[in-house]
Amino acid sequence: MKASSIKSELESYASTVNEFLLRSLEGKPKELYQASSHLIRTGGKRLRPFMVIKSCEMLGGTVKRALPAAAAVELVHNFTLVHDDIMDNDEMRHGTETVHRYYGLPLAILAGDILFSKSFQLITFNGKKVGIPESDITNMVAQLSRACTEICEGQATDIGFASSTKFPGVQQYIDMIEKKTAALFEVSCALGALSAPSHITRDIENLSSFGRNIGIAFQLVDDLIGVVGDPKLTGKAAGNDIREGKKTYPILLALNSTKGEKRDKILKVFGAKDKASSSDIKEAVRIISDVGIDQDVRNEARKYMNDAIKAIEGYGDSDAKRSLQFSADFVVGRSL
Amino acid sequence: MKASSIKSELESYASTVNEFLLRSLEGKPKELYQASSHLIRTGGKRLRPFMVIKSCEMLGGTVKRALPAAAAVELVHNFTLVHDDIMDNDEMRHGTETVHRYYGLPLAILAGDILFSKSFQLITFNGKKVGIPESDITNMVAQLSRACTEICEGQATDIGFASSTKFPGVQQYIDMIEKKTAALFEVSCALGALSAPSHITRDIENLSSFGRNIGIAFQLVDDLIGVVGDPKLTGKAAGNDIREGKKTYPILLALNSTKGEKRDKILKVFGAKDKASSSDIKEAVRIISDVGIDQDVRNEARKYMNDAIKAIEGYGDSDAKRSLQFSADFVVGRSL
Repeated sequence: MKASSIKSELESYASTVNEFLLRSLEGKPKELYQASSHLIRTGGKRLRPFMVIKSCEMLGGTVKRALPAAAAVELVHNFTLVHDDIMDNDEMRHGTETVHRYYGLPLAILAGDILFSKSFQLITFNGKKVGIPESDITNMVAQLSRACTEICEGQATDIGFASSTKFPGVQQYIDMIEKKTAALFEVSCALGALSAPSHITRDIENLSSFGRNIGIAFQLVDDLIGVVGDPKLTGKAAGNDIREGKKTYPILLALNSTKGEKRDKILKVFGAKDKASSSDIKEAVRIISDVGIDQDVRNEARKYMNDAIKAIEGYGDSDAKRSLQFSADFVVGRSL
Repeated sequence: MKASSIKSELESYASTVNEFLLRSLEGKPKELYQASSHLIRTGGKRLRPFMVIKSCEMLGGTVKRALPAAAAVELVHNFTLVHDDIMDNDEMRHGTETVHRYYGLPLAILAGDILFSKSFQLITFNGKKVGIPESDITNMVAQLSRACTEICEGQATDIGFASSTKFPGVQQYIDMIEKKTAALFEVSCALGALSAPSHITRDIENLSSFGRNIGIAFQLVDDLIGVVGDPKLTGKAAGNDIREGKKTYPILLALNSTKGEKRDKILKVFGAKDKASSSDIKEAVRIISDVGIDQDVRNEARKYMNDAIKAIEGYGDSDAKRSLQFSADFVVGRSL
């Protein structure tokens, strides 16, 4: 399978998921439901729902059985996006205004809250409807709520990093993204396993491990794109995360790998926002690329990807397994 | 039982609930958990957990079995308080700074989110620990998440009322508080029933009806206190909700029951905030009292209270049933 075919497979599942998502976000007052579906309507890869569905399929389950959990994790993902945009005071996402910019702060907070709430409704109500046993539904709720708690803890830790004058250690940073990002990938795969009609505890463990490792790889590559990403693809200015002073993995590596004048040039524009000239930003990005940070981050991400693939190597060959393997590959190789 | 003894019974249960709540809000990063327990540490009657426990006890269950759900509804209640204070930009609650004033907006949003998330963790993890069957846990999650969705819808409707130049109709207002406030009381009693080792569908329906009616009565009295409450007891300025321009039940009644000069005097200070003189405010409060709004609201609340009591009249006499009856009485009669 090539990069283009995993993309088209993602797209074909996305439309099924979108239909289900949008149907679950109909209600009154209309403005609240519009606010809560605002980002969903702007698109997105639906990578997490894809992981749910493929994990379920790999264990012999159907898309129909996986759909409630698939939609639930996407609702949780969107809930975190809506609230994160408020916390970061971001104005744009997916090329459109953020929810709080468009609908105002009060409705944006509520939009996030109702997305969160609906995710548990979907799992219990729709989960029951597609025939998932109550013991599995209970387990799904337990795992999803634990993941959400971890996401909040990770996000709070990240806020702590941002407000501190110190840089976190590399391991501290990995611990943070394990919670902030990887916990939702992990639970996506776990919920996929729980959606399959027959699964054992070991399946949930294996797929959780797959998801968690993919999640870390995903965030590392995301961080890399934030620093050295192509502005034409990202829609953001060159070196955006350097300019914003985000203490992400590639920056931590770059500061550990440079000294003297080079290090100073990075630090000069780090967090300087509008005060940094675009030539100084480009110079900093060039230094980071020259010391090989791009390669280092991709290599590190690939390690997690390999661990992910190892976690499911014991399963027999199947289309679903291949899709999971290719999605791992896609996560590490992507440039957007 | 007198008002004083229901108060002391509430207090004795509150300490059990508080201990459980605070234990469930330990974790890292410390600041996030401090922010999430901030309002809980300032006290509160724990009326909703009390309803959970007494509903469970009335059906033969124990406090121990009811405690996970009791704590869960209080977490949800606190989650809504933290986020509502942000939406209303309120600075003080329970005589202390609101969470967003004390910890800043980002951490306050996260504090609310983690309270929400933890409530589902408590129901699944702790519910299982105290021996609640998985089918009941699934039902609890379904009912709690549905209630949370209603709370968000009610709050969004209330925001819509506030931003509109028109006044809502009385029935529209009742529909709004049924969601914003009564849904959580309703689910508290339903979760209490579900926590009892033996219960039938009819028990859940009866106790849901009890809770929903209490919830409406509670909000009507709350609204009354906001308009004609004693500033010494409420800690807020006289006629606070008139000054703030809150379109609550007593105001809607007052505007329907007055005309000419009297009505103009109310409208003159309605939403005038700092521009209203305290003598004009007092005059408006006096007009509202003189046309008997106080009595009208208490009478209306009493109707809901009677419906609540009727919903549980079929149960045999017990201490728990008497506590529920007295708590209904307390909700309608309270002046704070």
